[in-house]
Amino acid sequence: MTSSTTSEAPTVADIRAAATRLAGVATRTPLLESPLLNERLGGRLLVKAEPLQRTGSFKFRGAYNRIALIPQAARSRGVVAVSSGNHAQGVAAAAALLGAPATVVMPADAPAIKLANTRALGASVVTYDRHLDDRDAIASEFAERTGASFVHPFDDRWVIAGQGTVGLEIAAQAAELGVRPDAVLVCCGGGGLVSGTALALSEAAPGVPVWCVEPEAFDDTRRSLAANTRLSNPAAARSICDALLSPCPGAITFALNRRLLAGGLTVSDDEVLAAMRTAFESLKLVVEPGGAVAIAAALSGKLPISGRTVIAVASGGNVDPDLFRRALES
Amino acid sequence: MTSSTTSEAPTVADIRAAATRLAGVATRTPLLESPLLNERLGGRLLVKAEPLQRTGSFKFRGAYNRIALIPQAARSRGVVAVSSGNHAQGVAAAAALLGAPATVVMPADAPAIKLANTRALGASVVTYDRHLDDRDAIASEFAERTGASFVHPFDDRWVIAGQGTVGLEIAAQAAELGVRPDAVLVCCGGGGLVSGTALALSEAAPGVPVWCVEPEAFDDTRRSLAANTRLSNPAAARSICDALLSPCPGAITFALNRRLLAGGLTVSDDEVLAAMRTAFESLKLVVEPGGAVAIAAALSGKLPISGRTVIAVASGGNVDPDLFRRALES
Repeated sequence: MTSSTTSEAPTVADIRAAATRLAGVATRTPLLESPLLNERLGGRLLVKAEPLQRTGSFKFRGAYNRIALIPQAARSRGVVAVSSGNHAQGVAAAAALLGAPATVVMPADAPAIKLANTRALGASVVTYDRHLDDRDAIASEFAERTGASFVHPFDDRWVIAGQGTVGLEIAAQAAELGVRPDAVLVCCGGGGLVSGTALALSEAAPGVPVWCVEPEAFDDTRRSLAANTRLSNPAAARSICDALLSPCPGAITFALNRRLLAGGLTVSDDEVLAAMRTAFESLKLVVEPGGAVAIAAALSGKLPISGRTVIAVASGGNVDPDLFRRALES
Repeated sequence: MTSSTTSEAPTVADIRAAATRLAGVATRTPLLESPLLNERLGGRLLVKAEPLQRTGSFKFRGAYNRIALIPQAARSRGVVAVSSGNHAQGVAAAAALLGAPATVVMPADAPAIKLANTRALGASVVTYDRHLDDRDAIASEFAERTGASFVHPFDDRWVIAGQGTVGLEIAAQAAELGVRPDAVLVCCGGGGLVSGTALALSEAAPGVPVWCVEPEAFDDTRRSLAANTRLSNPAAARSICDALLSPCPGAITFALNRRLLAGGLTVSDDEVLAAMRTAFESLKLVVEPGGAVAIAAALSGKLPISGRTVIAVASGGNVDPDLFRRALES
């Protein structure tokens, strides 16, 4: 890729700088809760509502922070990204705001809403076959040919720093509520959101355990944490969580997660559908499958919540109507 | 009813006092927007997201403010209300927080989620036939027999003052965004929310036109404003907007609305379903039919939005999954 891809780990100072950069551009999303749901759970569940973020997921944070740091001359040659859809929209929206042409390599079977919105936000979309093509090679060839900067979906210092602003906000919002969380649950694909959030919390709310949550068939980070080395998912793995289908942990994200996380949890597709329905009923929030795994871990008792206060990050809400209707049937 | 029902019009000072009473109990709901949707509309639509309010609708505001003002001795004899479901939940939640037993008279065909939540919040529910029984007589008899205080769903000084806190928040949030709205759209059943909101805005953002929005078949306030006298809806009128099926404007609410509103708009059930789907896709917000009429008025061009900034109040999100799935098919 290009020389502007940064391969060092971010610092908490990087996250604070990202928060300053994002002020007035990204949304400080609310922590939602339902007293009735809390009563049913016998504990307190606070949901960080990133579906209400610009572009409908947290990905805008990292993309904007990353593209804002590309020098103007390079920025005008454009940016290129690979994404199943949320990073695509984040890059498209950030690039448009920052005056960079954007090209995104997306799987042909990405949710229609993600493909349509990425185009509507002004990006050029190149599709590939999720199970046959090498998306990185497509993006790499494009970057070399055009001089565009590659914006990695997770394994990048400035992308992780941007996602980490979720952690700073969680710490501040918990303090405003007078709450000290017993645990924070964050979804995990490549690990950018959970590593950035855990890094921010390590300083802003030290001692609060942060868990990553993955789909059962894509539990690479959970297994990698247990084995203390990066392991991959089987190529045949499938899940409805289209946002979390990364093949293996990132190098930077895993180095952070190994140091910072309490461990990894997994949830089934059925538990994800049930969590989407609960978010609909109790929080009035639209959550996509990959965005619902952290809530699912709390609701299904994978992490005990009785008598405790747990914060779950709902990472996005870009879900097609047909799949959402299926969740409402569950 | 009981002597504690208050029949004077509220003042802006009443609304400010309600805001103080509600601080830390009610949610300061966010103003949501979608840059992509704005681009499509050629204007700026800001949605006040009351589905994210405690109990899933604005009704908690007025109910809490009203019940908090019942003297302790009377409060222990309980409260009684009639409601299609959102006021029911607001009263149930507020009464529980304030230590008053609550009884709610609800139509037997109210959405299941509203019946279930009202009971879960600790209220006793008495059901009636929406087209045959006299719900006011049932509540009145109960109040006289038990000494419970009647909490009117809209035509009450302290209820209107509580709902008016929506207007104070809109003014403050618009100022925080550096925006002066060209219009504010608010749904209208009995008129409590729109009259309180308009009253608050008359002082907090003077000169901003406030419009009420009703279902086509329940346009009593629009017609009453035009005729300058209170008119009723035909008994045979039907709409999917279960929260907005009041027979005629309230006395207090209409006196305020006649003085304060720019006029009345109406929307069809199909426009409401389309607005629910747009809120799902673009805002990630679950909105019930009655809660979506103001958004529907903006989306359908009933109030021109091109080149303007319009604030629409989404008043609630308590909708059964089956009806929501129907909206996603539209």
